[in-house]
Amino acid sequence: MARAVELAARGHGTTSPNPVVGCVVLDASGEVVGEGFHAYAGGPHAEVVALAQAGERARGGTAYVTLEPCDHTGRTGPCSRALLVAGIARVVVAVADPNPKAAGGAARLRAHGVSVTIGVLADEAARANEEWLTYARLGRAHVTWKFAATLDGRSAAEDGTSQWITSPEARADVHRLRAASDAIVAGIGTVLADDPHLTARPTLSSTDPGAADPGRSVRRPVRVVVDSRARTPRHARVLDDSAPTLVAVADDTDTALKADLLRLPRDAHGLDLDALLRELAARDVVSAFLEGGPTLAGEFLRRGLVDRVVAYVAPALLGSGRAALGAAGVGTIAGIHRLTFDEISPIGPDVRLVARPVTQPGREQ
Amino acid sequence: MARAVELAARGHGTTSPNPVVGCVVLDASGEVVGEGFHAYAGGPHAEVVALAQAGERARGGTAYVTLEPCDHTGRTGPCSRALLVAGIARVVVAVADPNPKAAGGAARLRAHGVSVTIGVLADEAARANEEWLTYARLGRAHVTWKFAATLDGRSAAEDGTSQWITSPEARADVHRLRAASDAIVAGIGTVLADDPHLTARPTLSSTDPGAADPGRSVRRPVRVVVDSRARTPRHARVLDDSAPTLVAVADDTDTALKADLLRLPRDAHGLDLDALLRELAARDVVSAFLEGGPTLAGEFLRRGLVDRVVAYVAPALLGSGRAALGAAGVGTIAGIHRLTFDEISPIGPDVRLVARPVTQPGREQ
Ligand SMILES: NC(=O)c1ccc[n+]([C@@H]2O[C@H](COP(=O)([O-])OP(=O)(O)OC[C@H]3O[C@@H](n4cnc5c(N)ncnc54)[C@H](OP(=O)(O)O)[C@@H]3O)[C@@H](O)[C@H]2O)c1
Ligand SMILES: NC(=O)c1ccc[n+]([C@@H]2O[C@H](COP(=O)([O-])OP(=O)(O)OC[C@H]3O[C@@H](n4cnc5c(N)ncnc54)[C@H](OP(=O)(O)O)[C@@H]3O)[C@@H](O)[C@H]2O)c1
Repeated sequence: MARAVELAARGHGTTSPNPVVGCVVLDASGEVVGEGFHAYAGGPHAEVVALAQAGERARGGTAYVTLEPCDHTGRTGPCSRALLVAGIARVVVAVADPNPKAAGGAARLRAHGVSVTIGVLADEAARANEEWLTYARLGRAHVTWKFAATLDGRSAAEDGTSQWITSPEARADVHRLRAASDAIVAGIGTVLADDPHLTARPTLSSTDPGAADPGRSVRRPVRVVVDSRARTPRHARVLDDSAPTLVAVADDTDTALKADLLRLPRDAHGLDLDALLRELAARDVVSAFLEGGPTLAGEFLRRGLVDRVVAYVAPALLGSGRAALGAAGVGTIAGIHRLTFDEISPIGPDVRLVARPVTQPGREQ
Repeated sequence: MARAVELAARGHGTTSPNPVVGCVVLDASGEVVGEGFHAYAGGPHAEVVALAQAGERARGGTAYVTLEPCDHTGRTGPCSRALLVAGIARVVVAVADPNPKAAGGAARLRAHGVSVTIGVLADEAARANEEWLTYARLGRAHVTWKFAATLDGRSAAEDGTSQWITSPEARADVHRLRAASDAIVAGIGTVLADDPHLTARPTLSSTDPGAADPGRSVRRPVRVVVDSRARTPRHARVLDDSAPTLVAVADDTDTALKADLLRLPRDAHGLDLDALLRELAARDVVSAFLEGGPTLAGEFLRRGLVDRVVAYVAPALLGSGRAALGAAGVGTIAGIHRLTFDEISPIGPDVRLVARPVTQPGREQ
C-alpha cells in the first residue's frame, strides 16, 4: 500500500477535479505484476493502468488501491467492473470514497465475491489526497494559505517596501505550488497595491518528476479576485489573457467591469467566503491557493476556511511595518488558531513551514 | 582538531569568564595519548589535562588545541610552558587568542623551536567559542536574544494574555539556555507586566552531559533589569534572593531602591546599551541572555548589539495582539536586519530557529 500511495502522489497537481489514486496489483502468488496511478482528469484510472500491465496474471490476485474503486461510468468505465473482469480475488483499499457519485465500488465487489478490506494506511493515503477529500466531503474548494514574512512576522517595511524578503528559491517554490493549484485567490487590496499577475510561472527543471508530464504544462489556474465593490482596475494585470480570471463581487454591486463576475452574497465582514469556495467547487476548483493579503487571509482564518498554511520565513527582522496576517477573530489567548507543523524545511536561506489546523473540518481525526 | 572542538564544546556554559578550549595530544607516531577540555573557570586548562594524561608519551608529539595556548600566569600556569616542559614538537591551533593578556603563546613556543600552525578548523572552533570571542574582541558581553511567538510573530493576544503560546519543551529549552548564560536581561516593561523571576530552573535529565558536572549546578546567572527611572517594584520577584540582581538605572536617577544599581549614561532611546554590555563584561559577564520585551529587544537590534537570535515559533496564528519585536530602526526594506539561520529544529510541537546577523561585529567573516 505504501507503494500505491507513492504512485498516487505522482498525479498530484494534475488530476483535478479527480482525486489522486495509486494502484498495485499482485498475482495469486504475491508477486507485483502491475502498477498504475491516475495522471490527469479524463485519463485512465489507476486500477485500469495497473490491470492492463498485469494482464492475465491479475486473475486470482490482489489489488491495493489508495481510494475505493469507483462504481460509476464517468469519462472512463467503473473500476469496480474492471477489477471483476480481470478476476481480482481481493481488494485492499486505503480510504473509502466519500463521493456519493463514485461510492459503492466496495459493495459491488463484495456482492461479486471479492474480499474487500478498507482502512489500510488510510492516514497516509488521505494526506496524499488532502485537497480532493476536503472538496468531496465538504463540497467546497480546499484552501492553502501562503505567506512570506520575516522571523518577526512582517511582510513589508514601514514605508510599504517589501522586495525581496524571501529568496528566489522560496519564490520559485511558490510558483510550483501555484501551478499545482486550480485557483489562485487574492483580495482587492493586494490587486490595488501590487498589481500582481497571479499566474504560475514554474521553472521546471529536468530533474522535476513533473517536467516530463504533458498534463502539467497546460494547466492555467483560474485567478480569483475577492472584490465586493468591483474595484479591480480595467487594466489590472490580473485581467490580462495569460489565464482565466473570476472577479468575485457582491450580488448587489452594479458594475460595468468587463470580466467574468462571480456574484456572491455579503456577510458581516465582506463577501461570504464559504459561498465563494462552494461556487469555486461547482466550477471544478478542488484546490485554491490563497495569496493574501493579510485582511483576506485573516477573514478566511476567522471562518475556519484555511486547510493548510505554507509559510516562507526569512532570516530577517523588521520590528515594524505590515504584519503578514490581519485580524483573525482572536481576542484572547484561548481563541488562538492552533495548528500542527507537517513540515519544517530549509529552502535556500529561508525556512518553509507547512502547518494545518489541529481540528480540520475536511479531515477525519 | 574536530575531536578537540568536540571536547571544547563540553565546557560550554560553565567556563565563563574563560573560553572553552579542547586539546588532543598525539605521540610521535601519531597515536592519540591524551585528551582534555577546560571545564570551569579556575580548573585546569585543556592542554594541562591532555598532557597529564599523555605523560612521557607526549615527548616529540603533536598537540591540537582549539585556541592559542595562553602565555600568562593566571589562576593556573601558562600552557605554553606546560607544552614546552612536556616536550611537544608541534602545536596545531584553530583560533589565535585575541586576548592581549593571554596572547603570545604561539610566539613563545616558536621561540623554543616548536612548530606552530594556526587556523586549522578555525570557523568551527570559533563557533564553539562564539560568546567568549565576542567578549574578548569587543570588550562587551555577547547577546543572545530569545523570543517566543506564533507563526505570525505575535507573543500575546489582543487582551495581553499569552499563556502558553509555546510548549513545555520550548520553555524547558529556555531554562537550559538561561542556565548556560552569565546574565539574564529584561526591560522594566516586562518586569512590570509579568513580574518574572528570571532565574534558570533547568530540568537536568540524567542523559544531559552537564548533569554530572559539579560546576554547572551552582551557577546562578545574574539578573539584569534595564530600568532608567528605577521603577522596579520593591517586592518584584526579580529582587528576591534566588540569584544576584543588577538594576541598571540612568546615572541621573534619584532612587531609594534597595538593590545593586548599575549607573549608566542615557542616549536618545533610553539607557546606553553598549555601555551596559561593557559594564557587564567588566563584571565577568561573557554571555547575556536577553529575554525582551519587544521594546528593549528592538533597541538592542537597532544598535547592532544582538549577536544571536533564538526564536521559538509555535504552530499557531493570532492575527492581532502584541508583536514579538518592537521598532528596530528600520524604515524601508533596504534597512532590514538580515540574518542567517544556523539551526532549524523541531522542539516539541514548535520549531526552534537560531540565527545570527549576516555581518556580526564580534566575528571575522
Ligand atoms: N506577504 C505576503 O505574502 C503578501 C501576499 C499578498 C499581499 N501582500 C500585501 O498585502 C497588502 C494588501 O493587503 P490588504 O490586507 O490591504 O488587502 P487584501 O487582503 O488583499 O484585500 C482585502 C479586501 O478584500 C475585500 N474583501 C471582500 N470580501 C472580503 C472578506 N470576506 N474578507 C476580507 N476582505 C474581503 C475587501 O475590500 P472590498 O470591501 O472593497 O471588497 C478588503 O478590503 C498589499 O500591500 C500586499 O503587498 C502580502
Ligand atoms: N514573547 C516573549 O518572548 C516576551 C519576552 C519578554 C517579555 N514579553 C512581553 O513584553 C511586554 C513588555 O515589553 P515592553 O516592550 O513593554 O517593555 P520592555 O522591552 O521589557 O522594557 C522597555 C522599557 O525598558 C526601559 N529602557 C531603558 N533603556 C532602554 C533602551 N535603551 N531601550 C529600550 N528600552 C529601554 C524603558 O523604560 P524606562 O524609560 O522606564 O527605563 C522601556 O520602556 C510584556 O507584556 C511581556 O509579557 C514577551
